[in-house]
Amino acid sequence: MTDFSRTKRAFHLPSGVTYLDGNSLGPMPRAAQQRVAAMMADEWSDMLITGWNKAGWYEQPQRVGNRIARLIGAGPGEVVMGDTLSIKVFQALSAALALRPEQRVILSDSGNFPSDLYVAQGLATAMGARLRVVAPESVADAIGDDLAVLMLTEVDYRTGRRHDMAALTARAHRAGALTIWDLAHSAGAVDVDLTGSEADFAVGCTYKYLNGGPGAPAFIWVNPRHADVARPILQGWMGHEAPFAFTPDYAPAPGIERMRVGTPPVIAMAALEAALDVWDEVSMDHLRAKSVDLTGAFIAEVEASCPDLLLNSPRDPERRGSQVGFRHRQGHAVMQALIAEGVIGDFRAPDVMRFGFAPLYNDRDDVSRAAATLARILRDEGWKKAQFMRKAAVT
Amino acid sequence: MTDFSRTKRAFHLPSGVTYLDGNSLGPMPRAAQQRVAAMMADEWSDMLITGWNKAGWYEQPQRVGNRIARLIGAGPGEVVMGDTLSIKVFQALSAALALRPEQRVILSDSGNFPSDLYVAQGLATAMGARLRVVAPESVADAIGDDLAVLMLTEVDYRTGRRHDMAALTARAHRAGALTIWDLAHSAGAVDVDLTGSEADFAVGCTYKYLNGGPGAPAFIWVNPRHADVARPILQGWMGHEAPFAFTPDYAPAPGIERMRVGTPPVIAMAALEAALDVWDEVSMDHLRAKSVDLTGAFIAEVEASCPDLLLNSPRDPERRGSQVGFRHRQGHAVMQALIAEGVIGDFRAPDVMRFGFAPLYNDRDDVSRAAATLARILRDEGWKKAQFMRKAAVT
Repeated sequence: MTDFSRTKRAFHLPSGVTYLDGNSLGPMPRAAQQRVAAMMADEWSDMLITGWNKAGWYEQPQRVGNRIARLIGAGPGEVVMGDTLSIKVFQALSAALALRPEQRVILSDSGNFPSDLYVAQGLATAMGARLRVVAPESVADAIGDDLAVLMLTEVDYRTGRRHDMAALTARAHRAGALTIWDLAHSAGAVDVDLTGSEADFAVGCTYKYLNGGPGAPAFIWVNPRHADVARPILQGWMGHEAPFAFTPDYAPAPGIERMRVGTPPVIAMAALEAALDVWDEVSMDHLRAKSVDLTGAFIAEVEASCPDLLLNSPRDPERRGSQVGFRHRQGHAVMQALIAEGVIGDFRAPDVMRFGFAPLYNDRDDVSRAAATLARILRDEGWKKAQFMRKAAVT
Repeated sequence: MTDFSRTKRAFHLPSGVTYLDGNSLGPMPRAAQQRVAAMMADEWSDMLITGWNKAGWYEQPQRVGNRIARLIGAGPGEVVMGDTLSIKVFQALSAALALRPEQRVILSDSGNFPSDLYVAQGLATAMGARLRVVAPESVADAIGDDLAVLMLTEVDYRTGRRHDMAALTARAHRAGALTIWDLAHSAGAVDVDLTGSEADFAVGCTYKYLNGGPGAPAFIWVNPRHADVARPILQGWMGHEAPFAFTPDYAPAPGIERMRVGTPPVIAMAALEAALDVWDEVSMDHLRAKSVDLTGAFIAEVEASCPDLLLNSPRDPERRGSQVGFRHRQGHAVMQALIAEGVIGDFRAPDVMRFGFAPLYNDRDDVSRAAATLARILRDEGWKKAQFMRKAAVT
């Protein structure tokens, strides 16, 4: 069995805090600070420019990518790190569109994170494609022969609703289209199986459930069947087949390396490497089982004690990621009151309170404390104070 | 006068080392390690998600950009940080091409860093433009009416040759074109005057003369006359006019903020902020004067004592950045021998030894030691050992 008491001890969690916002920013692994300090003192400071070879900075984006690959059902040499999630979405989508030059529709849904849609809008304009956005439950039926790329975030950032990656990918493939899966709310949260679902591209960030720190680098996966033919629009130095030959013309590196762009963020990557150490002895099956237990227990406890709240997440654990949302007309004020009591979730307009459960450091005590605090605030109308303070601040 | 003994003390430089490779990776400012440790312990660790507001992470890309603005002759609110230099080149070039839809030629030179050309090739293909590359001395005459964008690196990474930014910008403007200046080897090295030269876009990295650490974030400047109309192809979340409204459609933020893309690298930015503290009392005129003195003295000392070497940099300081190159048929082996003696420069094929002089921490003692060591190695043929070892390693 995965030892979740060990993984919990690996994090610095402020005392008195129940942290249910790891789906936004994961807490700091205790080892991260020492790792970054060592990188600066032993590598940058003393090795200077030779750190690129001596300390392995140059290979770091693929070395770290290999560690993430295991967590998302990908193989070694299939994932590479760098940039931000928006950039990786841009790379995947431009490469996918170029692989389907005769089809020009990009299909996404209204449950996608808005910035993925912004990136798609910009790219669609530049590449003569058209973005179509439908409701999450209408995606399957909207797949048609004009489809070039189905681009979805697997787990909805507001509701936690989880798409069926394998089924939608199969349906897109039957229509001759490719798929791009954004794993922002999946990596480290659910049991992703990119290889088994035969997806084409996947991207994700590492500062949520992977706990890499604010602004930690993103990752991109390209199915090996496309990796040597996918042509990146961002033709970067580090993705060249021979970066240090300084030839005037771009020639993409074989495989996933071509998705590297510029100089990798070495200091940030040191923090991420420390964060990934925590995962070394974690089984993704155990992680998923614990996630289902925590979110299910939270739904049950809240529904039993807070009749005013409306569940905003799927009740079926198969259709749910690792977060739970509840709606309340004064959701913002209620969440402020919760945070004041040390239970940190977050709020998304117009009325959704989000609670993320990270099996690595959240446990049943967190579930019970959060549910009980929420029930007490609602019963005592403790949120009215926060609501009053908010109004006072506005006027 | 700028106190360069103070700035030198601000850096950790390994004992016995004369570091002349700050044009590739600057050394670690002593304050960087403490700053990063404090950011992790006091901000990430304790503030968790609230750090975005409480610790000012959200505004950091522009706050740091404002500090760089002074060093490159730009105004406050005109520079923003993020991503890598390659991404910033891509943003600037796509925005500039979109501002000149009737003209389709991108002009650059063979002295540009190859990755800028790679980015331009990828974008030219996507946007139906054409990249033309000429010799550095032919740039002015190659400017014609079909020109959309003149894209140059001000200081050549191999030779240190410096373009006349104001004159070439004026000539491009007369032809109806826009200019993009890559300041990778200029920022913190020479007295850049973006405002005075009336340039249109500028981009740069911060891990060379600005000493932000390996993979430190890049910067982009957009002339205020374009900042509200330049439409970025990379339509990122953080460049939206209201990122937290989560609207489905992209609407660019006013001004330079639209050039932000994804979540900024907060840990890396902490190191960069510490590095920028060193610049606070540095006059760019004094910096430039010291740079000219160091590079001029190095040329004179090496030419006096090393008759076998051929200067690969402009003799006229007006046409020279802050680095000097010398050619030798066994340049690689000579550089290896120099590094073994603690004088760290670097080598660029086929035969160029590069020596970067960073006024913040290099002084006349470094010049004399480097020149004397080089002369001794050449006189005693000390490079033959390195050459032999290289051959042995290959066979």
